[in-house]
Amino acid sequence: MRNSLLPCLSLLAAALATPAAAQQPKQPPLVIGSQGSFFVGGRDVRSDTLSVLSAYSASGTVTAEQMYVRYQVPVDAKRPPVVLIHGCCLTGKTWETTPDGRMGWDEYFVRKGYPTYVIDQVSRGRSAANPTLINSVRLGKTPPSETPPVFAVGHEAAWVIFRFGPDYPKVFEGMQFPLAAQGEFWKQMVADWIGTLPTPNPTVPALSELAIKLDGAILISHSQSGIYPFQAAALSTRGIAGIVSIEPGACPAATGDLTPYLQIPTLVLWGDYVDQSSRWAPRLKLCREFAAAVAKAGGKTELVVLPEIGIKGNSHMLMQDKNSLQLADWLTAWLDKHVAPKGP
Amino acid sequence: MRNSLLPCLSLLAAALATPAAAQQPKQPPLVIGSQGSFFVGGRDVRSDTLSVLSAYSASGTVTAEQMYVRYQVPVDAKRPPVVLIHGCCLTGKTWETTPDGRMGWDEYFVRKGYPTYVIDQVSRGRSAANPTLINSVRLGKTPPSETPPVFAVGHEAAWVIFRFGPDYPKVFEGMQFPLAAQGEFWKQMVADWIGTLPTPNPTVPALSELAIKLDGAILISHSQSGIYPFQAAALSTRGIAGIVSIEPGACPAATGDLTPYLQIPTLVLWGDYVDQSSRWAPRLKLCREFAAAVAKAGGKTELVVLPEIGIKGNSHMLMQDKNSLQLADWLTAWLDKHVAPKGP
Repeated sequence: MRNSLLPCLSLLAAALATPAAAQQPKQPPLVIGSQGSFFVGGRDVRSDTLSVLSAYSASGTVTAEQMYVRYQVPVDAKRPPVVLIHGCCLTGKTWETTPDGRMGWDEYFVRKGYPTYVIDQVSRGRSAANPTLINSVRLGKTPPSETPPVFAVGHEAAWVIFRFGPDYPKVFEGMQFPLAAQGEFWKQMVADWIGTLPTPNPTVPALSELAIKLDGAILISHSQSGIYPFQAAALSTRGIAGIVSIEPGACPAATGDLTPYLQIPTLVLWGDYVDQSSRWAPRLKLCREFAAAVAKAGGKTELVVLPEIGIKGNSHMLMQDKNSLQLADWLTAWLDKHVAPKGP
Repeated sequence: MRNSLLPCLSLLAAALATPAAAQQPKQPPLVIGSQGSFFVGGRDVRSDTLSVLSAYSASGTVTAEQMYVRYQVPVDAKRPPVVLIHGCCLTGKTWETTPDGRMGWDEYFVRKGYPTYVIDQVSRGRSAANPTLINSVRLGKTPPSETPPVFAVGHEAAWVIFRFGPDYPKVFEGMQFPLAAQGEFWKQMVADWIGTLPTPNPTVPALSELAIKLDGAILISHSQSGIYPFQAAALSTRGIAGIVSIEPGACPAATGDLTPYLQIPTLVLWGDYVDQSSRWAPRLKLCREFAAAVAKAGGKTELVVLPEIGIKGNSHMLMQDKNSLQLADWLTAWLDKHVAPKGP
């Protein structure tokens, strides 16, 4: 078996030229003051269906609903830090090296002087999901109809949701997403347990705790998590120094209580082709109504649709598009103006 | 609701003093030549049970069995790099900041000059698990008895498995694990999908591919993954510059084909209290037999039990124990002697 696999492994190795090494332009060294990871939140859960395997006991206590956070603080860091919050079916990998091997926003913000905190949403990635209900179904204690609705999004559906084109596999003209590395993007997608979580999603209070712990943070969210910084602000505005909501799945209702949002510098940012998407066009419309309502009430929410300011071709995954660092430059300029971060 | 939650959030914030910030001794800046993340492996899977939610199509293609890798390369890096491979019910977080907020081996090896690659095993953490069988049960297409055996390990069982003490919550005398931060360790534990994966575990060929891609790597594995570097070497010894197997769940059979292991400098490393554990004592015995058989055949496998060389009190999670950096120093000295890494 060993020998028969060798040619195969060689071919695989040749095909797998490290994207990160092969395509990333040479950068000056990155000088980090501190880095590490920790969790926010979490609660203990007792269960008798932890396992159906004889090697591991069925009964016991697990910790669930904690949020994983990985951070890097540059030397001579600015304040406040940024928190990068990924969207549906993805993890913190969203913000790291792009599918075609370019630098992600996680590193670029550090190079711009921002302490940068990348999270995995509760029950996703390195933030544990709770499998006890799955085992309960297997053991006949829970009916199959109550099996937890853990879902994956297929390439074909994701193509349209992420607005790479109008239908799979058609491509919007001028598309900035690095489609030549599409397969690397599909590898980023993970099963999504959000339908198994209580309301509000435990990621929301965890973000609030994190912002307070950091004594001020700019919450940068995306898509499914777009609403989370607003929901965190509704819990407490404490620690929320700014909100950047990139293509949110929802904005707060224009007719709701806008008080939590009036004092927080907020940007709601959209890419291109939105009016060609039956999923996203109504969401943009509702966000426009929210931004207008906040403005009318004297707040600081700005909504920007990139093609309306001359930046064209961006997909829903704009932090990975070919012009992603140009967008990061634009975004940090916006933050400089509206949140006014302080130097060291 | 906002106001009523404020005191609660304040208390939480106070209780959650960042372990990383609070307890990590001041270090000189970390100077990184390059960092990033990518995936190795993965295959496309077609399914009609991706989702039971109306918002996401049930039919489509997902990519599964890819392995997430995060890396940091110091300036003036040594060769070969190290690959850190976590064990059961855990993720790459194993090697990052310890539960009590000290520097993890991921950063320490970089500071020692090693390019360091931290993986999440296939179907764990940021490496996607495939939920299609779960949805198939919910939809009545698969009987509940075939629900995938995704398991979690409870605190009580983990206490004994990780050898914090003989029985929960008794503690072994002289224990080096930072038990005051026990709750932070429980947050690292995730559901384990290993029972749903084909044989060999796709992490094994992915590690082989990674070692070849890196043109040589030292594979440092732990517990459940302890056997993986050996299994990768049995596929191909190409790229495997050294093996460090920390408290492996299994060693290769002493009576099997030892050829793949004869030329690879190998360390099998064990902590303390092993002879007091009915789970681990027989495994150590079998590993001793393996190491003796390799030595007899002229190979380079060394087995070290830390208390036998005067280092006492180490748990199964020795990379997180209070003396973890002392152990890393000992390990890099071993690597200097036996793998002989080259300076830049």
